[in-house]
Amino acid sequence: MTKYYVDLNSDLGESFGAYHIGQDELLMQYITSANIAAGYHAGDHNVLHHSVKMAITNTVNIGAHPGFPDLQGFGRRFLQVDPKEIYNMIVYQVGAVQAFAKLYNHELNHVKPHGALYNIAAQDSERAHAIAQAVYDVNPNLVLFGLAGSELVKAGEKVGLKVAQEVFADRTYQPDGTLTSRTEDNAMIEDADEAVSRVIRMVKDGKVEAVDGTDVDIKADTICVHGDSKQSLAFVRKLKKDLENHGISIKSVGK
Amino acid sequence: MTKYYVDLNSDLGESFGAYHIGQDELLMQYITSANIAAGYHAGDHNVLHHSVKMAITNTVNIGAHPGFPDLQGFGRRFLQVDPKEIYNMIVYQVGAVQAFAKLYNHELNHVKPHGALYNIAAQDSERAHAIAQAVYDVNPNLVLFGLAGSELVKAGEKVGLKVAQEVFADRTYQPDGTLTSRTEDNAMIEDADEAVSRVIRMVKDGKVEAVDGTDVDIKADTICVHGDSKQSLAFVRKLKKDLENHGISIKSVGK
Amino acid sequence: MTKYYVDLNSDLGESFGAYHIGQDELLMQYITSANIAAGYHAGDHNVLHHSVKMAITNTVNIGAHPGFPDLQGFGRRFLQVDPKEIYNMIVYQVGAVQAFAKLYNHELNHVKPHGALYNIAAQDSERAHAIAQAVYDVNPNLVLFGLAGSELVKAGEKVGLKVAQEVFADRTYQPDGTLTSRTEDNAMIEDADEAVSRVIRMVKDGKVEAVDGTDVDIKADTICVHGDSKQSLAFVRKLKKDLENHGISIKSVGK
Amino acid sequence: MTKYYVDLNSDLGESFGAYHIGQDELLMQYITSANIAAGYHAGDHNVLHHSVKMAITNTVNIGAHPGFPDLQGFGRRFLQVDPKEIYNMIVYQVGAVQAFAKLYNHELNHVKPHGALYNIAAQDSERAHAIAQAVYDVNPNLVLFGLAGSELVKAGEKVGLKVAQEVFADRTYQPDGTLTSRTEDNAMIEDADEAVSRVIRMVKDGKVEAVDGTDVDIKADTICVHGDSKQSLAFVRKLKKDLENHGISIKSVGK
Repeated sequence: MTKYYVDLNSDLGESFGAYHIGQDELLMQYITSANIAAGYHAGDHNVLHHSVKMAITNTVNIGAHPGFPDLQGFGRRFLQVDPKEIYNMIVYQVGAVQAFAKLYNHELNHVKPHGALYNIAAQDSERAHAIAQAVYDVNPNLVLFGLAGSELVKAGEKVGLKVAQEVFADRTYQPDGTLTSRTEDNAMIEDADEAVSRVIRMVKDGKVEAVDGTDVDIKADTICVHGDSKQSLAFVRKLKKDLENHGISIKSVGK
Repeated sequence: MTKYYVDLNSDLGESFGAYHIGQDELLMQYITSANIAAGYHAGDHNVLHHSVKMAITNTVNIGAHPGFPDLQGFGRRFLQVDPKEIYNMIVYQVGAVQAFAKLYNHELNHVKPHGALYNIAAQDSERAHAIAQAVYDVNPNLVLFGLAGSELVKAGEKVGLKVAQEVFADRTYQPDGTLTSRTEDNAMIEDADEAVSRVIRMVKDGKVEAVDGTDVDIKADTICVHGDSKQSLAFVRKLKKDLENHGISIKSVGK
Repeated sequence: MTKYYVDLNSDLGESFGAYHIGQDELLMQYITSANIAAGYHAGDHNVLHHSVKMAITNTVNIGAHPGFPDLQGFGRRFLQVDPKEIYNMIVYQVGAVQAFAKLYNHELNHVKPHGALYNIAAQDSERAHAIAQAVYDVNPNLVLFGLAGSELVKAGEKVGLKVAQEVFADRTYQPDGTLTSRTEDNAMIEDADEAVSRVIRMVKDGKVEAVDGTDVDIKADTICVHGDSKQSLAFVRKLKKDLENHGISIKSVGK
Repeated sequence: MTKYYVDLNSDLGESFGAYHIGQDELLMQYITSANIAAGYHAGDHNVLHHSVKMAITNTVNIGAHPGFPDLQGFGRRFLQVDPKEIYNMIVYQVGAVQAFAKLYNHELNHVKPHGALYNIAAQDSERAHAIAQAVYDVNPNLVLFGLAGSELVKAGEKVGLKVAQEVFADRTYQPDGTLTSRTEDNAMIEDADEAVSRVIRMVKDGKVEAVDGTDVDIKADTICVHGDSKQSLAFVRKLKKDLENHGISIKSVGK
């Protein structure tokens, strides 16, 4: 009998100074991988320290979540940065997060780019390569998280990194395997049961139904979940339980 | 016959984006320790990468130069940050610089706080301890640079770090071993020969004459030099030559 | 029969990008003066525009709330800035807020420094003067809000500005009229009825009982209120009602 | 006999904190319009104050030079900001510069967007409109500077602003009147005499020869000049002298 596994990851540590975002303490209880904001688009040195400690307490893997240097835009706006500089942005931010893990003799486990950097890395092979190479050069044992089937995943494999292909429970897919843009009406899956069923199929069968009704091949190593509202937390609980009931173990990617 | 050694350190990598400061390429030829700005008070990820590469090319030891997060004030203005947060500031910045050294399989050698952070760490034992502990926790093999005889040096020794006591060729000292404030008329040593003679005495005899004519005990492990003008570079050349002519080898502190 | 008046002011517009703080929409219904964060310690151009519109809709006077350039510290940490630069900081921030008022053909009404800048301006006559002069030079019709009896109020009067002396309902006072530091156990007035009674006495009799039991003279032109929690909003409602029941009209300072 | 006029404008006040850029003192002697960096992409409140004073001393018109909030990229990188937010960015920055002019009872004369914001405003009618509307709403008497024939110029005219069409002496043009991208080999005019002749023809005949040899209609109200090197300053001197020798008066646009 085949055994199935999947990782649950979430973006955390996004508070900044007096500004509080997220329910990290609660979310940490359900996930296996924490992508901790590295200070460019969100987070600061205090939040980072606190988040790393929380991840360790909850035996959640510590990941760096680097983004564009745009706190006001929360890293969600594309900034025209060339690949060479993106390389340096990644090194800087991964180094910073890594040092906090080191305080507790823990290793950084993975890197997942944030927001507009994640999106451009999914499509732009040069920028994807810059990110992958930077991660590899800082530490070749790190796992690179990227959109399933994206340029970032390909770049990671090419430079010799272990990659984790990420899928989204609440998003629809295009026939080419990309996510439907949030500006489209049919971008989101609102029904929780439908969202869970789709994820189970992605993990077990490696398939997802695109918006045009065709099936797309997809590899689901890790599922992105959110904890910014009561509903999103409830969904994470449900998702975890349903996955386990369908014989899929929640297990971290990496070491 | 006793052999004398001293290190020459300088603050480098302080350019930012389109803004250029310093003559780092030239200065790198004379110094043994580079304190590279870590991005809070000066420097950015591109400048940092370039500076680390230059240090390696010139076989100069790589150090992190963390400061207060105040680019507009160049880290020279005191910011009321508590010791706990100073600890986190140091971890973040040291981690970032360390990652760039790692790209070339080099180790970070030392940490020297910058500007207002350096000054407060010389006097405030709690903040000094926070800095020393942060450096130790990130990497206990790092050398901590601090003002000779200061609270920072004491804190470094206390937590178990190797320390490098820093002296200034162009500054006068008070009877208690502190630097005369720059706001005072007699703060600076203008005469190059006098400056060099004083340094030689500090290195060989462990003494410096204070502004009131009394002798103060001082330990000179490393001398701070500057490269922002033609004159300062000429002084570094002279200093290096004169030190060697007086039997003092220029040798880096650390590994 | 004497008629009494007092202004209710609050710090608003402190959200930033994706970060939300405060219940400005609700608070706007009770206050007469809005101190809108000007972008250095909190707020951004979008939040500023939105806040100015809200103030106009609620017929609340528009004020600029300039602070130290320290978003991460929310302007609560002292930064060693000299008076000349403080002057420039004020001009810049007041100018920015004023332009948003101008969009709707409204005038800026007042300026109240924020956090650490407010505190230092209460005690340091040179910095207080720099602030007052900057406000006057940008627009001599602006009202300057400062701690009752403080150096800032004196400086404002000296340069020829109309000033509004500010009192706090929830804070205790020292015999010299300064606020008890928040680090002291007896800094806060917890009981709502006591807080209101004290304010009524300040407005009507110009007296407040200091922590040592002695009476201090105080002038109460405006009361600082908060809207960051359910309790604080409930207190504002109670305060407003109780003041009116005691014959004190809530009326804005200024035009 | 027809009389010809043209304005000479330059981007100034781009220093920041300890970072110095430009030879503003020298350049101010030749130009008629100063575009002063407003603090988002370059400049700070101190530099702004100093630059406004210099402009007044040299009877140069004061303009605001707003840009994207990207100091590290010097505002030269496109940032995906929607028109509504661009409107707010302009209001904030124009308001700040205006306040410094007000200190000396001077009026702000004009607004010229900077770098990537200037470039996108030349092509994108929605963003161009947002800029024009913001300028108009802050002060309808301001002159809007934009690339000759661009969307920004059209948007300015549409909202009712006086516009100044800007030409470049050292750049080549495409047959459609746009500038040749700097990434192209033939983007720059290196020869000073040729550059001047082209400008004279633009001012007098309203024509410029495009890279394909065809003539393009162009309106030259103002010429952009630079002062960052000895050569650029020498060129400005030559340009001014040659223009006057050809019967073209240097005269500011606006009041």
